[in-house]
Amino acid sequence: MTTETVAESAVEGIIPIGRVLGGRSELIDDDWGDVPSVIRLDAARFTPEALLALDTFSHLEVVFHFHRVPPEKIEQGARHPRGNTDWPLVGIFAQRGKNRPNRIGVSRCQLVKVDGLDVHVLGLDAVDGTPVLDIKPYLTEFAPRGPHAQPAWADELMRTYY
Amino acid sequence: MTTETVAESAVEGIIPIGRVLGGRSELIDDDWGDVPSVIRLDAARFTPEALLALDTFSHLEVVFHFHRVPPEKIEQGARHPRGNTDWPLVGIFAQRGKNRPNRIGVSRCQLVKVDGLDVHVLGLDAVDGTPVLDIKPYLTEFAPRGPHAQPAWADELMRTYY
Repeated sequence: MTTETVAESAVEGIIPIGRVLGGRSELIDDDWGDVPSVIRLDAARFTPEALLALDTFSHLEVVFHFHRVPPEKIEQGARHPRGNTDWPLVGIFAQRGKNRPNRIGVSRCQLVKVDGLDVHVLGLDAVDGTPVLDIKPYLTEFAPRGPHAQPAWADELMRTYY
Repeated sequence: MTTETVAESAVEGIIPIGRVLGGRSELIDDDWGDVPSVIRLDAARFTPEALLALDTFSHLEVVFHFHRVPPEKIEQGARHPRGNTDWPLVGIFAQRGKNRPNRIGVSRCQLVKVDGLDVHVLGLDAVDGTPVLDIKPYLTEFAPRGPHAQPAWADELMRTYY
């Protein structure tokens, strides 16, 4: 195992591959399941070839940047999810809130259709204008293997999310 | 829907939150399921508070940087997964290979234990030294809702992956 300390510096050259268009423009926490939107690839860098056969998958995994979170709002330690003190104090890496170091979101959504550089999706929890960093196909085998567990507060929070 | 074209520029200030230590050092494609490793948070920026109650989850979702892929090897269009011509030509966003724009990986793994700033995991498909950009808890509700589908080549590729 490597043991030396690495002085971390910014990862260079992460450039959005496109943007989320449509869907919601307000930052609302819940009811994302039926929100339609489009991920439009940057025409300056990509051709439809980059999306070839994407439509052989039913679901996608989208990596995006929570660009509307101001840097000074980023939480480095622990907080109550959504500020709800009925829920326990948990570390920022033990929750999926947007005010997180590096402000990276990862979500699954349903693929509706691909049209040129436009990927039409359903249920992507990212607002209009969100910079998209990656699109991956959802693969069954990337789900947890074996049973998985989460605490009660997460069940409660997610009850109205999708 | 927004329709104007956005000239994309690099996302500033994405700094690894830590590194993968241990596990494999060679870039091998398969058999990741039993590989143990540690994600060590950067002690210059984080305290164990950032991981508070992470151990109430059984599985994590880890976002990382494929730092060993040279920029000139990044694929922008389509290719056969793993260069295997028995499989169809598919766009880079229709596969999960590491030679992708922005070189961002997202994987689920099992949480073994948390010890200070060290997160011990099993089955994380990232080599020793990999910069980690985020850790999120795996939530049941973030899996695809309803049935999902993937093409035959993906089933074949994944047969020996974990």
